[in-house]
Amino acid sequence: MLSPKKAPRANNNIEPLFQPRSIAIVGASSNRRSQGFDFVDGLVQFGFPGAIYPVNPRLDELLGLKVYPRLEAIPGRVDFVISAVPAGAVFEVVKGAKKKGVKLIHFFTARFSETGRADDAEAERELRRVTQEAGIRVIGPNCMGVYYPKRRITFDPWAMEGPGNIGFLSQSGSHAFRVIGRGKKRGLRFSKVISYGNALDLNEVDFLHHFADDPDTDIIAAYIEGVRDGRRFFQALAYAAGRKPVLVLKGGRTAAGDAAASSHTAALASQRRVWQVAVGQAGAFEVGSLSELIDMLVTYRNAGPVRGNRMAVLGGAGGGTVECADLCNEAGLELPPMPQSVREALREDIPHAWDWLGNPVDMSIVGPGGGGKETQIMELMAAAPEYDGIILNLPIERVLNRLGGDRLPQEALDRLRRLGTDNNKPLVVSVEEPESRDKGMVQAVLDARDAIGEAGIAVFTDIERAILAMSRYIQYEARREVLKADV
Amino acid sequence: MLSPKKAPRANNNIEPLFQPRSIAIVGASSNRRSQGFDFVDGLVQFGFPGAIYPVNPRLDELLGLKVYPRLEAIPGRVDFVISAVPAGAVFEVVKGAKKKGVKLIHFFTARFSETGRADDAEAERELRRVTQEAGIRVIGPNCMGVYYPKRRITFDPWAMEGPGNIGFLSQSGSHAFRVIGRGKKRGLRFSKVISYGNALDLNEVDFLHHFADDPDTDIIAAYIEGVRDGRRFFQALAYAAGRKPVLVLKGGRTAAGDAAASSHTAALASQRRVWQVAVGQAGAFEVGSLSELIDMLVTYRNAGPVRGNRMAVLGGAGGGTVECADLCNEAGLELPPMPQSVREALREDIPHAWDWLGNPVDMSIVGPGGGGKETQIMELMAAAPEYDGIILNLPIERVLNRLGGDRLPQEALDRLRRLGTDNNKPLVVSVEEPESRDKGMVQAVLDARDAIGEAGIAVFTDIERAILAMSRYIQYEARREVLKADV
Repeated sequence: MLSPKKAPRANNNIEPLFQPRSIAIVGASSNRRSQGFDFVDGLVQFGFPGAIYPVNPRLDELLGLKVYPRLEAIPGRVDFVISAVPAGAVFEVVKGAKKKGVKLIHFFTARFSETGRADDAEAERELRRVTQEAGIRVIGPNCMGVYYPKRRITFDPWAMEGPGNIGFLSQSGSHAFRVIGRGKKRGLRFSKVISYGNALDLNEVDFLHHFADDPDTDIIAAYIEGVRDGRRFFQALAYAAGRKPVLVLKGGRTAAGDAAASSHTAALASQRRVWQVAVGQAGAFEVGSLSELIDMLVTYRNAGPVRGNRMAVLGGAGGGTVECADLCNEAGLELPPMPQSVREALREDIPHAWDWLGNPVDMSIVGPGGGGKETQIMELMAAAPEYDGIILNLPIERVLNRLGGDRLPQEALDRLRRLGTDNNKPLVVSVEEPESRDKGMVQAVLDARDAIGEAGIAVFTDIERAILAMSRYIQYEARREVLKADV
Repeated sequence: MLSPKKAPRANNNIEPLFQPRSIAIVGASSNRRSQGFDFVDGLVQFGFPGAIYPVNPRLDELLGLKVYPRLEAIPGRVDFVISAVPAGAVFEVVKGAKKKGVKLIHFFTARFSETGRADDAEAERELRRVTQEAGIRVIGPNCMGVYYPKRRITFDPWAMEGPGNIGFLSQSGSHAFRVIGRGKKRGLRFSKVISYGNALDLNEVDFLHHFADDPDTDIIAAYIEGVRDGRRFFQALAYAAGRKPVLVLKGGRTAAGDAAASSHTAALASQRRVWQVAVGQAGAFEVGSLSELIDMLVTYRNAGPVRGNRMAVLGGAGGGTVECADLCNEAGLELPPMPQSVREALREDIPHAWDWLGNPVDMSIVGPGGGGKETQIMELMAAAPEYDGIILNLPIERVLNRLGGDRLPQEALDRLRRLGTDNNKPLVVSVEEPESRDKGMVQAVLDARDAIGEAGIAVFTDIERAILAMSRYIQYEARREVLKADV
């Protein structure tokens, strides 16, 4: 396999590019439905501490900021330019940026090589030539650019959370949005998210090296559609994976006109196999869909340290409990029986069922009068040395009904989290789709799920996903141990 | 393989048992959190047209109904008894039922063989003896019983929809609830749902024969934990699968005390393989989880007739579009390129992208100004003879924003459904988790998803699930064609 130690370092440290003291948005717009507005609005709302310079010859003022007709008209220094102008206007932007000594341009501007048209591809090559000549580094074109919470840089007021420890490089802007948006509710926070589109200059190799060395990043995620240089890419991947867990989602190809062709089975399938083997050899982990990527990030971020595959399971009720057992079993997880010590400890409180309860615990046996006993049972199970981890199929409607409110109190969230943290074991929780048709209860269930996620507990919308995530997490971490030993 | 023609018929037609003119609920309760209340409340609210007789020596009146101290005190005839008394009281119930000439008892009453205790198992055997001797058929014990919308029989006021064409036999009561509750929002309606628990008398063999011959049932679903007689079961399965699609979910074992033991890998894995082969040979389809069972019912119920595996796909936007292509491809679906005829028809309306759009259609290319064009594009694609089916990754937040409301108008639902029905092609639609953090928009997305499901369109919460369901549906139906040809 590729040795992470032998992987060549990138020649350049790109972090300074992401620390601009001023940002100009060329193509800033007063149309609230345009991205030219959102870029400015995002920086203002997120509180970017440097200067924000909107640029548009047809505006004087935007969101309380003075608008400049051209880059050259800006009095101060400009470190970073975001381009939201149409494709035909990018060369003017580069010219102005060169004069202002700009270091980095992010081209949100699209309609280059991705259209599959010869003249658009030629324009992209020309853009590479002129930016290279001007000594300007480029992110894009055709992408959302940089989300860097620590520096309060964002591409959208929807993305404005505090910083976290996940670095995500995404060739797709919509995937960047989805991972930030869906991840937010599940407790994911990011060191940086970089949507880099057509990768004219800065690309997956640069960003992998960057995140590998970034002290703020503990977990790396990548969505990649195509790589420019396979050898350099897999070296960078091995370098990163030797330092941190790296989760990779491979998309087809960006040239949208070729979407159908790229789905042509034979070619894709053989490429895919090569890709899978190479990713595995580099020590990274391939995921099969965006949902799985988010699930695995949630698990890596929140589930806690891996010890082994013997699980204590609260299985919900009845058939749900049986399903938990089957799914765990199929996913390679072991379910040791309820220890005698736990049984004895429950004898007094659950006289009718203490000898009958098993693992998974079937809450319908404890009965509707068993209020609160699920917590007691799970605390005993979670602490038992017979188990390495905890899987909860939370009977959330029952819990909310019992607590008599429409939200989980902080104390309940704390006890839930402590099932894992007090015992230093991974914990995953499923809060399933509400069965109730009462709108208030449906909303309460969704709110409870978000609250659990935001409390830093690995939460899932389906017990199947929770079990698969726990199983993959254990497998991945076991492989990382082996790879570390190899090095 | 087992020939459906040779499968012996069940000796008895059980349908008359489900047409009681009167129902007595023994153990009726005024405690609104008890099932003894819900049985009575359900029948009252659903409008059961026959007599409802609550029985409880400590009550005089319940929900406006006279309560009788014992079965024998009921003046009229009693066809069907629901027993919600504790396990110790069931023999009294049988005695009374025998005197009243009752034909069928459903024992909701639990704590029999499922506890794994010798005396409880012996009580169940005794219950079989006395009911058999009395000539009374039994559903249960330890189950929810009968949901029969056409006759307005239900086990719960949550389950009160109009009749439909799905027959579901479920050994688990909680699975019965989940399939009815989650299925409701996705357009599933049932001929009957029978939760039959420990299957002391009437069992999977009876219910499979029943649904196979039931003119109101077009699709059969089964959740089965254990079978009493493997040979008879597989004959019944082959008989049913020779007539109607049959989807089977296998659970572990009911003896909850043995849940951990039944998850013991080796034994279960080998049994499972035997089971899988036998289910396949019988011509039925095994699903792997409750979510998959519901997904496949939604597809069978609503997706429309299968023709082939060439799909027209609206892929959402950007990376989502690429993911659609990858997932379709991995699921064995073909994505023929956008036909030239469709392209030409779009030339005028989408001048900047008509030659660039592909299949899957990337809506981010059409652009935010493309309002309404997704419908036009999909109507052209759906009608094109190059495609056998339609998969929509609906950009629901964009659609709702464009329509400027918080709900989908009926006309939008109609146009959506007609994509499939007008072209006689299967249609599956994914309405993904909302990315918006605006509570109103989140609610609007969930409401839109429910509205699409209730409008009889096969709707999913995740594009991956939608694609897998379409793929499995096509595979299953192809196999059913082969089996029919064999017979």
